Amino acid sequence: MASAFNNVGLFIRKDDPVMEHAVVKVVEFLHSQAISVFINEPLRCVPNIDVISISDFPNKCDLTIAIGGDGTILSASRMLAGTQLAILGINVGRLGFLADITLAKLEQELSAVLSGQYREDKRFLLHATMLDTNNLIGTAMNDVVVHAHQSINMVEFETYINGRFLNSQRADGLVISTPTGSTAYAMSAGGPIVDVDLNAVVLASVCPHTLSNRPLVISATNTIDIVLSEQTSNTALVTCDGRPGHILQPGQAIRIEQHQDDIKLLHLEDHDHYSILRAKLEWGKKLT
Amino acid sequence: MASAFNNVGLFIRKDDPVMEHAVVKVVEFLHSQAISVFINEPLRCVPNIDVISISDFPNKCDLTIAIGGDGTILSASRMLAGTQLAILGINVGRLGFLADITLAKLEQELSAVLSGQYREDKRFLLHATMLDTNNLIGTAMNDVVVHAHQSINMVEFETYINGRFLNSQRADGLVISTPTGSTAYAMSAGGPIVDVDLNAVVLASVCPHTLSNRPLVISATNTIDIVLSEQTSNTALVTCDGRPGHILQPGQAIRIEQHQDDIKLLHLEDHDHYSILRAKLEWGKKLT
Amino acid sequence: MASAFNNVGLFIRKDDPVMEHAVVKVVEFLHSQAISVFINEPLRCVPNIDVISISDFPNKCDLTIAIGGDGTILSASRMLAGTQLAILGINVGRLGFLADITLAKLEQELSAVLSGQYREDKRFLLHATMLDTNNLIGTAMNDVVVHAHQSINMVEFETYINGRFLNSQRADGLVISTPTGSTAYAMSAGGPIVDVDLNAVVLASVCPHTLSNRPLVISATNTIDIVLSEQTSNTALVTCDGRPGHILQPGQAIRIEQHQDDIKLLHLEDHDHYSILRAKLEWGKKLT
Amino acid sequence: MASAFNNVGLFIRKDDPVMEHAVVKVVEFLHSQAISVFINEPLRCVPNIDVISISDFPNKCDLTIAIGGDGTILSASRMLAGTQLAILGINVGRLGFLADITLAKLEQELSAVLSGQYREDKRFLLHATMLDTNNLIGTAMNDVVVHAHQSINMVEFETYINGRFLNSQRADGLVISTPTGSTAYAMSAGGPIVDVDLNAVVLASVCPHTLSNRPLVISATNTIDIVLSEQTSNTALVTCDGRPGHILQPGQAIRIEQHQDDIKLLHLEDHDHYSILRAKLEWGKKLT
Repeated sequence: MASAFNNVGLFIRKDDPVMEHAVVKVVEFLHSQAISVFINEPLRCVPNIDVISISDFPNKCDLTIAIGGDGTILSASRMLAGTQLAILGINVGRLGFLADITLAKLEQELSAVLSGQYREDKRFLLHATMLDTNNLIGTAMNDVVVHAHQSINMVEFETYINGRFLNSQRADGLVISTPTGSTAYAMSAGGPIVDVDLNAVVLASVCPHTLSNRPLVISATNTIDIVLSEQTSNTALVTCDGRPGHILQPGQAIRIEQHQDDIKLLHLEDHDHYSILRAKLEWGKKLT
Repeated sequence: MASAFNNVGLFIRKDDPVMEHAVVKVVEFLHSQAISVFINEPLRCVPNIDVISISDFPNKCDLTIAIGGDGTILSASRMLAGTQLAILGINVGRLGFLADITLAKLEQELSAVLSGQYREDKRFLLHATMLDTNNLIGTAMNDVVVHAHQSINMVEFETYINGRFLNSQRADGLVISTPTGSTAYAMSAGGPIVDVDLNAVVLASVCPHTLSNRPLVISATNTIDIVLSEQTSNTALVTCDGRPGHILQPGQAIRIEQHQDDIKLLHLEDHDHYSILRAKLEWGKKLT
Repeated sequence: MASAFNNVGLFIRKDDPVMEHAVVKVVEFLHSQAISVFINEPLRCVPNIDVISISDFPNKCDLTIAIGGDGTILSASRMLAGTQLAILGINVGRLGFLADITLAKLEQELSAVLSGQYREDKRFLLHATMLDTNNLIGTAMNDVVVHAHQSINMVEFETYINGRFLNSQRADGLVISTPTGSTAYAMSAGGPIVDVDLNAVVLASVCPHTLSNRPLVISATNTIDIVLSEQTSNTALVTCDGRPGHILQPGQAIRIEQHQDDIKLLHLEDHDHYSILRAKLEWGKKLT
Repeated sequence: MASAFNNVGLFIRKDDPVMEHAVVKVVEFLHSQAISVFINEPLRCVPNIDVISISDFPNKCDLTIAIGGDGTILSASRMLAGTQLAILGINVGRLGFLADITLAKLEQELSAVLSGQYREDKRFLLHATMLDTNNLIGTAMNDVVVHAHQSINMVEFETYINGRFLNSQRADGLVISTPTGSTAYAMSAGGPIVDVDLNAVVLASVCPHTLSNRPLVISATNTIDIVLSEQTSNTALVTCDGRPGHILQPGQAIRIEQHQDDIKLLHLEDHDHYSILRAKLEWGKKLT
């Protein structure tokens, strides 16, 4: 049967030691199917693969296969935001929320996807900009976090939704999370789980000083502005998916909006997000 | 100026002692504007008003004015579900989330609304049915709660979203809440605040036995089925907005869906839901 | 080697189907050690054992062996409160917090305890009385719970610590828990884990209406009075360790105090409560 | 009537602008009572007062009066730890948990305390040392916090209670709090309120990765060791009462123990800690 995809770009993170074995297996399988393969980083274990920048993936490939863990898919997604290139995740470690092809059944599962037996799972990204200059701070698939820059301080800030004042807070930080990120840092901060097909964003405070503070869930179509107070000299750190961040000075503000283009993740047809939730969160199984 | 509304139905709850004074003032004002007035219950303080059933309001009135507190608006909304009749709330007690016309500024604020200076605020209702018979259990503007019938017991149940198994739980109960209800009982159970314009539903467990249980926010377009376990003899009580409920036997199941018609609440043009949240939850004001 | 105990009373709960096999094994072993055995209920599987009331255990036995789960030990402890009789728990089901002798290693572990190789673990009980009449409501090893009698209502009550007013609350209920009970219902209500050697009591509200409500930990030497409000007609149910309870009328009050005598649980010498916490709560193991 | 105290040391924090007016009033009153007055910092508004180091207070004074807010009392307490010198707090700002003499009733309330009408309120401190070298890191009246040094990272650590392994965690940090500190940062992290006369310590994790993590309350007589993991390169910051901290390298460990000497705070005889809790946390008042 003809493959639905003829040119595949492999996306890896070089600092991930356990993916090499998987890359070799994936390359072998793809070549056996006469599929052209590219990779974003040179690897000794697959010396003959063309190395191209991920920014060239949309031109040369019709599928990205991210090999690693959820973090690898987050990276690939941020870099491919705004392109239409779909991403398939191969999970080489513990059970992930995003990558569901497993090494144990690699040939069978990959084969299914390549022959067109897959489901699309659209996820949205957030992007954060400086409010005054419009300069991009970063793109996030999980969350944008405004955190006290020095961990012994707190930050004091105002939040506006579509320009309307919501509240002022003193806290260690604020997590603005997508549904994808609602099972990541936002959950540690006490946020709810948001179903991945709901177009919503969670605002969850980290160690809020106000006892009546509660996580807030709003439509992802809203524009969220966070204004750092000028009343203290505390700076804040803005991070996207936990990567090294941008320092915010007192009085500065950031704007967080939904990225205009969704990311397309591919899953096996029998993929069930709830079964992953049950497994990861050790929830109750069916009553027998 | 001509009124946008010519026939007004007043909705009251007879057991509410403090609304009578407000009813007299509202009737006086409406009569001064040559507006026809109906009421759902006979009151000695307004002996000459036509008493009609609320089920006749849609035929005879073009506006319902609910006089009381948030509970009064909840009642009116459930009864008017499926009609197009808008509801304006007059608040006679403590600050409410739903009713924003105050007695102190009654003439001015009522006058504004009657002259067409108002905003529409659409809220959705839930309705709960028995899964096997399709029989209606009730309609809810805040929440449907499945609670252990005997307060010393817990309930054991499975939850399905659009027929897909979510999880099984042992808990004191489960709250299925609209955004409107997210600041009511669902919040006591640890649920997040959901913005009233997000088409979403919160599932929050009451005293769950599973430590990794977290509130879940899903699209309100989903169908939610709750199946009471046959493995214990514990019955459950299903309540809608906290009214006397329906007993669920072991093995029985209920279905919760979004009501097909929204409720239209009217607000003053400068109505700001966030300022009510700040006031009710004692959140931080603007930094000066 | 001579046994530290010569007369053992077996305590079982008749409704527990899985303990019979264990009882047979325990009786066989005890008889092989020439230890006299009594039991609190007749069982067909051990027809020749003397059946005596648990109230006679202190006279005729120098050790109680409770066979079942944590609930069985809770029962035995409440019934033996005020006697000096030690309790050893044999766990026939899932890992428990209280019973640590396992069937798999029954002979070896029982042998160790009988030869004097054990540790004593003192736990305290609470007892609840009617404030006006001093009548006993019950004794609890886990918790005393004041809960709305009808699950759709809330209760309104005042709490006093040593006669000093603490606060008034509206909630589904209030859990007053020992350290033993802090990993049971109190934890579902959001209470902290209290180390079992701390002489303290947790007050944790169930679904409190006040957003700033937080669990409170106080010395177990305090006297706690709960006064049910006369302002609503809602009755409350007072339960001890979740057993069928006592109805409290509006205006009535209960007093909760530490029982004057501790319970002595016996454990293997290498018993480690923290390892049980880690296993039951799925906490992190040592970093390798 | 003779004063119970003849030599008073005033303790202030120089960076607190609002206390000067209060200092003048206190000095005037003390001089009118023929009481000798010392101060820890020179102030232009009271030019004739002897300035001495707080380390000389125990030699020259029989009472310390801390003028400022709760933070001022925390500072004085840490510096006077190990001396027997009592501390009276005068509150010049918002209602505090520790300082209860108010400016409005200064003469009356101070007069009462000086004439011996006061209650002693003993509070304990924690001190943190490096486990290997025994070097003192700091003393804390509220809390010792082990926090990720870089706010975008987490820390990974093991906790031992009296040398016994409790658990390993990945989190933003860990708060080890006294009862005094249980209403401060530990509460923002989700910890319970601990009554100030309970000899206990709270361990509350900040944004723990483990969903089943719960705050833990243990006896303050325990020794707590925190070992930073060598498996990541993340450093941690150890702070005492939120002051600039000590950097912990991977593999290093700290020990937290109760300080051997209590601090004596003086209060008015009708001081009621619960009424302060009700006021600060906006808890329910008596039902009328």
